[in-house]
Amino acid sequence: MKIILLQIDKTDQSFVEHGVQEFTKRLTRYTSFETITISINKTVRNKTIAEQKQEEEKQLLTHLSKYDVVFLLDEIGKEFSSIQLANQIQSILNAGKKSLCFAIGGPYGFTDELRKKYPLISFSKFTFSHQMIRLLFCEQLYRAFTIIKGEKYHHN
Amino acid sequence: MKIILLQIDKTDQSFVEHGVQEFTKRLTRYTSFETITISINKTVRNKTIAEQKQEEEKQLLTHLSKYDVVFLLDEIGKEFSSIQLANQIQSILNAGKKSLCFAIGGPYGFTDELRKKYPLISFSKFTFSHQMIRLLFCEQLYRAFTIIKGEKYHHN
Repeated sequence: MKIILLQIDKTDQSFVEHGVQEFTKRLTRYTSFETITISINKTVRNKTIAEQKQEEEKQLLTHLSKYDVVFLLDEIGKEFSSIQLANQIQSILNAGKKSLCFAIGGPYGFTDELRKKYPLISFSKFTFSHQMIRLLFCEQLYRAFTIIKGEKYHHN
Repeated sequence: MKIILLQIDKTDQSFVEHGVQEFTKRLTRYTSFETITISINKTVRNKTIAEQKQEEEKQLLTHLSKYDVVFLLDEIGKEFSSIQLANQIQSILNAGKKSLCFAIGGPYGFTDELRKKYPLISFSKFTFSHQMIRLLFCEQLYRAFTIIKGEKYHHN
């Protein structure tokens, strides 16, 4: 199974980029993992928040429709434990799905339409920037595979 | 007021170290902020988990007793929102406290004795490594001050 992290706009914080690279490297031991970045035209960033989210929705939908299973990482979603995330991934693997996509919204999050269409996973009651969430997600995905494989990382 | 992040052992993941440096730099605009690292002797790391936690507790207590207000960042704690954390810090500022310490445990977390002695804050139902928590905390502390000051970062 292929796992995709779908995100909006390039990461401009170098420590986030380095952390994502580090976990991506570690993940190759367990799964096929790819990050896809949607670039939003800079002129769109001068529009209202609602218009920016609308444009992001349009572009996200084009991608999301390609994948067998999709989750949106969204602060209003259900909070999982690391073990619950591992179980969820295991059951998707067991069901023989070909692709699993986790999507992170833009600076203002997802539209309500997208939130209704796909299941939501929340990382925390704390709000994190959409860039930090990339790093948090990659650590959790790596942790999930160490749990699935019964390896050591979980308590380190 | 001085804010202290108390942690166990040096960070060996460079992206965590860089991220912490980045937020530390940004925080100087708002508050006095210092990270204190307790180094645990390597021979202790060959002992049982309980013994390691006991040694960490002993060293943590020496530091924690110095501060006016202490919170432990612990996965079994109460989950705060970013706004709740900002309100909490604001009220400690308003009370005229001189020092506020947030402590992160070692690889296996805090002893039950420490958990009973101090209030706990949880970041997430997800388990993060004690190194990742440093970065998550620094972003949240920075975010809390942007909320207190009514600045822009919160939605970025």
